Amino acid sequence: MNFSSKLLENAVAEFAKLPGVGQKTALRLVLHLLNQDKPDVERFSAAMTKLRNEIQHCEVCHNISDSKVCEICAAHKRDRTLVCVVEDTRDVMAIENTNQYNGIYHVLGGLISPMDGIGPADLTIDSLVERVKADEIKEVIFALSATMEGDTTIFYLHKRLKDSAVTISTIARGIAFGGELEYVDEITLGRSITTRVPYEHSLSR
Amino acid sequence: MNFSSKLLENAVAEFAKLPGVGQKTALRLVLHLLNQDKPDVERFSAAMTKLRNEIQHCEVCHNISDSKVCEICAAHKRDRTLVCVVEDTRDVMAIENTNQYNGIYHVLGGLISPMDGIGPADLTIDSLVERVKADEIKEVIFALSATMEGDTTIFYLHKRLKDSAVTISTIARGIAFGGELEYVDEITLGRSITTRVPYEHSLSR
Ligand SMILES: [Zn+2]
Ligand SMILES: [Zn+2]
Repeated sequence: MNFSSKLLENAVAEFAKLPGVGQKTALRLVLHLLNQDKPDVERFSAAMTKLRNEIQHCEVCHNISDSKVCEICAAHKRDRTLVCVVEDTRDVMAIENTNQYNGIYHVLGGLISPMDGIGPADLTIDSLVERVKADEIKEVIFALSATMEGDTTIFYLHKRLKDSAVTISTIARGIAFGGELEYVDEITLGRSITTRVPYEHSLSR
Repeated sequence: MNFSSKLLENAVAEFAKLPGVGQKTALRLVLHLLNQDKPDVERFSAAMTKLRNEIQHCEVCHNISDSKVCEICAAHKRDRTLVCVVEDTRDVMAIENTNQYNGIYHVLGGLISPMDGIGPADLTIDSLVERVKADEIKEVIFALSATMEGDTTIFYLHKRLKDSAVTISTIARGIAFGGELEYVDEITLGRSITTRVPYEHSLSR
């Protein structure tokens, strides 16, 4: 592209680094921002830097949080004997949206994926094993995507947890194979949590 | 959406204000930024505020510029007798990309659109009339989208300019009716400029 302005070129280049945003889309978005009032653009920029500089991860569940312990872990009405294991914060949001779940979470920070070079040590798996040993946890629910990476991760987690006293279950697969958890509609997702099955049972089907 | 963090919620809300960016896309883009190093996010934010706070519009052609007079207007090798009238900076970029045009520009800042409440006074039309009166301009080329708004604007501009001594032409319509100029491929656009036709001639066809 032939930019008439270095300032414009820089802004477009920054936007085009975002996933799924091409040069033309980046230009459209940047020109939109350029048409906004200065305080609006300041607020946009400040929201991003503030998020990046001030965000924390919950000491207990590793979810994104504004404080040392996240709101969910800190809430009194939550059932602390029930832990739902998810890939990332989007999955926590998706499950919270169903209003079907009253336990707490454990955010892995990814899924085991040899192809992408992500092994167990890159995830918060040791922390989960510690929680299960130390806490009053009675049941661990795996709520991971129905993909190869999700299944690999569940297989590994089950191996690490099966000698503990906790019940291990997976959310019911109302999800088509290959389905990403975050795109499942709320009703299906809510139902698949309430109708969760013991992990061994899910294997035999 | 149920956000576990106000910081995250704010950032997503800001992104979702951008045109064509829904909540889920905004969340995906913001989480991507959150995974980048702090200086990278600072650079992203700074590029936007710097652009908005420091951008200027060329005194001559009204194109976006880093200086009082844009690079194109300031270039010695440009043919100052030829002015191409376009809607916005994206059209300047598209035409520059063809490498078929050596004149200068006039950026209207929009098209006449009674539906959107945009009249001639909202555009840089008076400035164009002044340029044609004062300068050494011999030809004005209309390079506007082949839409109702583009045609209305050309009709109005022609009325304002037809008593002056300049030749008035429009880019050849290799473009399907309803086609947005910025999405035309470079070859078609370049050819339509070199094969431009007198405006009256384009009406009679
Ligand atoms: Zn937490
Ligand atoms: Zn200029």
